[in-house]
This record gives sequence, C-alpha cells and structure tokens, in this order.
Amino acid sequence: MLTGKHVAFVGGDARQLEVIKKCIQLDATVTLVGFDNLESNFTGATKKPFTCDVLKDADALILPIVGTDDKGFIESIFSTKTMQVTKEHAQALRKDCVVYTGMAKPYLKQLLREHDVSLVELLNRDDVAIYNSIPTVEGALMVTIQNTDVTIHGSEVIVLGLGRVGMSLARVLHALGARVKVGVKRPEHIARSNEMGIQAFDLDDFKSQVTNVNMIFNTIPALVITAEIIAQMPQSAFILDIASRPGGTDFRYAERRGIKAVLAPSLPGIVAPKTAGQIIARTLSRLLAEQGKNQEGSA
Amino acid sequence: MLTGKHVAFVGGDARQLEVIKKCIQLDATVTLVGFDNLESNFTGATKKPFTCDVLKDADALILPIVGTDDKGFIESIFSTKTMQVTKEHAQALRKDCVVYTGMAKPYLKQLLREHDVSLVELLNRDDVAIYNSIPTVEGALMVTIQNTDVTIHGSEVIVLGLGRVGMSLARVLHALGARVKVGVKRPEHIARSNEMGIQAFDLDDFKSQVTNVNMIFNTIPALVITAEIIAQMPQSAFILDIASRPGGTDFRYAERRGIKAVLAPSLPGIVAPKTAGQIIARTLSRLLAEQGKNQEGSA
Repeated sequence: MLTGKHVAFVGGDARQLEVIKKCIQLDATVTLVGFDNLESNFTGATKKPFTCDVLKDADALILPIVGTDDKGFIESIFSTKTMQVTKEHAQALRKDCVVYTGMAKPYLKQLLREHDVSLVELLNRDDVAIYNSIPTVEGALMVTIQNTDVTIHGSEVIVLGLGRVGMSLARVLHALGARVKVGVKRPEHIARSNEMGIQAFDLDDFKSQVTNVNMIFNTIPALVITAEIIAQMPQSAFILDIASRPGGTDFRYAERRGIKAVLAPSLPGIVAPKTAGQIIARTLSRLLAEQGKNQEGSA
Repeated sequence: MLTGKHVAFVGGDARQLEVIKKCIQLDATVTLVGFDNLESNFTGATKKPFTCDVLKDADALILPIVGTDDKGFIESIFSTKTMQVTKEHAQALRKDCVVYTGMAKPYLKQLLREHDVSLVELLNRDDVAIYNSIPTVEGALMVTIQNTDVTIHGSEVIVLGLGRVGMSLARVLHALGARVKVGVKRPEHIARSNEMGIQAFDLDDFKSQVTNVNMIFNTIPALVITAEIIAQMPQSAFILDIASRPGGTDFRYAERRGIKAVLAPSLPGIVAPKTAGQIIARTLSRLLAEQGKNQEGSA
C-alpha cells in the first residue's frame, strides 16, 4: 500500500492513466498536473496547476514516460498548456523526493543532479525493458504484416541483436514459422540462439547473410544496416528498425534503392497503451512502496 | 512442366499474377483476358478480349479466386471492362477443359454442370485451406493488434473451432503468450487441444467462458456468438470473426453493447497477396500437370 505517500503526476499520455489508477488503488495521495482535459475523473485525485507549491510536499514526482524535451518542456495529451521543468521546480522538491520518468534528457538529469534530487529512469531497468519487449514485438508484427505482401511464416528473417527486445522478437518470429537468423557479436548470444534452436551469425559476416532476406529487424542502436549491406539485399526486402532514434539503418540509401525501411522506436505506447501503462504501473508502484525504506535503490 | 497446355486466365487480383508467373515458368501457353491495364507485361502470355473464340481450345480456364458473382460477373482489378460468364462461354469450352476458381456461386456451378464441364473449387481443398490459414492468422494478428489497447500476450483469448484455420490460430496465439481456450464440439478436437497444451471447452458451455475474455476469434460459419453470449462479455472484449460471410456474430447486438466486433473473412488476399497467390499457384500447377492423366480427380 502507498497510504500516506504523496505522488504528483505532471503530464503524460494514455499510459499514465494506468499508473494513476494503480496509485489511487494503493491509497496514495495523488495530485494531477496537466490533466485539465482528462474526461474520466479519478475519484481520489486532485487536479492542480503546475506551481512550485504543488511539488513541495511530494514524495514522488512522476513525469511522462517520454520524459521532457531538451529544454525541460513536458508534453501532456490531456492539456494544451505549456509546462516546463525549471530550476525553481527542482528547488521546491524535497531532498528525499524521487523523480520518475521513462528516459531522461541531459537537461533533466543535470537539473536534478544540481539540486541533489534522485532520478529513476524506468525504461533503463531490465525488468521494464523485458516486459516492454512484449508490446514492442506485437507492434513489430503489426507493422511488418502491414508493409509486406508475403507472410512472416516461411520468410527469411534476420534479427539484429539478442538483447531484451531481440530475444523476444527472435522467439516470436521463430514460433510464427519464419526462418530466423540472429546477427550477434557476443559468444553468450550465439550460445543462447543455439539453445533456442535459432541460427546465429557473427555481425562481421552480416553482408553475406542478406542476399535472400525478406525481412530485417534491427534492435541495435548503432549504424549496422549500412549502404554496403543494403546494396546486397533483394529489392523486395523490408527493414523494420526498432532501435532508439535515429535507428541503425541508412534510411537515405534504402530509399534510393527502393527498399522499404521503417523506423518505429516506441511501439508499446502506440499499439498497446493499456498494457504499456500497466507495465510501468506495476514496477513504479513497487518502487514507490520501497522508497524511503531503501532510498539508495534509486540512482 | 505444362508444355503444350493452354491455360486461359479471366480476371482476378494481385494473387493471380503469381499463378500466371508460375504457368509461364512451367512453359504453358497462357492467354490473359481482362488484364488490359496490367503494367508489368508477362513475356510469353497473350492478352485477348473475352470471346468464345478465346476459350474454345483452352485446357484450363482460371477464374478469379473470389469466383464470379451471383450472375456470373467477373471482377478484374486489371481491367475496367465488364465480363460475364454466359451459356455461350460454357458451350464454347471443350468437354475436357477444367474450370478452376477459389469458390463458386450456384450460378457458375449450375452453368458448368449443364454443359458438362468440370469445376474445381481450390479453396475447398484441405491442402489449400491449411496453407491459406497461414496468411489468415497473420492477418488476424494484425487486425487484433490494431484494434486493441492490450497485448495478445497475457490476454484471455478464445478461439471458436479447431478446423483448418482454428488450429493454426490457436497454436500461434498460444506461442505469443496468450491464455488460449478453444471452444469445440468434437471429442477429437478436445483431444487435439489437450495434445497442444491448450485448454478446450464444449461449445455448449460457451456462455460461462466469456466473463473475463479479452479477445474472441471465430472460425465457425454459423451464429455462435449470439446476443446471449455477448451480454456476458466485458465491454472491452474484441471479437474478430473470420468465418465466411456473414460470419457467426450478432454484430448488431455487439454494436449496441459497445463491443468492438470486426468481420474479416478473406484476409490472405489483403495481408499477403503474394504468399496467397503462391499458395494457389503451387496447387494449381500440380493439378494442371495431372489434368488429363487423371481427369476424374476433379469434381
């Protein structure tokens, strides 16, 4: 339970509603900032404007999953008002208040560091990233089925990277009947692929692997699908890049060769906002309950 | 090889191009009727108008996979001309010519029966139906992911029917991490579900199974998702009906209750026209090669 804890939400999208719901259910005192146009009123939550006063007794400040922009501006799909996190807000926060967000830009990180306020980036956590890989994979299936005229079943498919998303993706594509190969570097990833019954190749040999490929899924946040690689692919190949912006594909060259390449880095909030919100809600409510008990747990 | 065989295509969609390609590749003499606007010219195929003369020396007449309409009209996405199969055409066909289509309406069946011409409905064949279940399932995934705000993974899912499509669907949903139950009647289907590690229930108990359902997939071509059943579902449930038109759902009542229900009976041609065409091409080319050798094989 979160009885006695004051949780302030500032901005967000449909996912945040699941987090708010969970906090209210666990009996937290909930303040909502930037939710003016939210139609469904949450009983037990108070809507307030974005002032320093609102923040000063908060145990936790929850920013949107996408964080702020480079200058600290916060988006809320439930408000048209402009909100910016400034020095004054950081100053107003209690020293034991913890700020939670999905991913933080340098602006926010530095601001909070300067004011000695803890920050937790939820999407950096392994557990959240693994749970998030589930809606990511389903989004990847959707986008691929929409963009190709062949089935995934029976296709020659390459997954680049066997990290938290790559593993989920490789497993699901394999289960759907695709002929999957994963491109990896680390020996433990080659071992894991083999254990899963999926062929692995060394990324250094990538170029020789693409001549018959139907679909390539990239999860590596570095330029891996270079012009040199794209030049070897059949024109009917489809590239789906789900690594963080700007992705790992030479999109300019892909377009020039007439190869369809799509960058889709944040699928969970798009294809399954409710599940994506529940993933955050589950982890966040546990962290909030532990907060204070174990302050050093936050980074 | 189909050397020496004359195959006449009348109308069709993108799928037919795969069939045409295959026939040319196997050295058949190919005539195309209703492909006036086809941009890619097939070397080795002759475009002709729809006359009795064209048909009179054909070994096989290939109609669109969707067949004709109730009055024998044929659609072609590659032509704006109106084409109707009439008595005169049926009369012009040789007695050993075989007409191939996906599904035939009573009009076409009767016309050909009267003129003693064999008709093969490809989609009625078990092998074609099983291969077709692959793009159907991928289309079902796409439509479901588009229409829900939760992931298939972790959802309570019901599949109605464990036929050619139901089995593929149940297996894939299970592999994606859904909690799948299949609603069936026949004891061998209950046995098969159990063998697959998937829970089965008797369709007579359907009503008691839907209280927590997230997604229902119907493959049974009869009214099974009745108003009485829909009344028991949560409002957030999603129904995807992939049985032949008019499906097996009381869509009027679903709409009244605010439950999203989609009828999507012919997904293969929409989501994977190339694969769907290759499925037809593979079977059809085998049937054409056997034709004559084994005329009684066609019904």
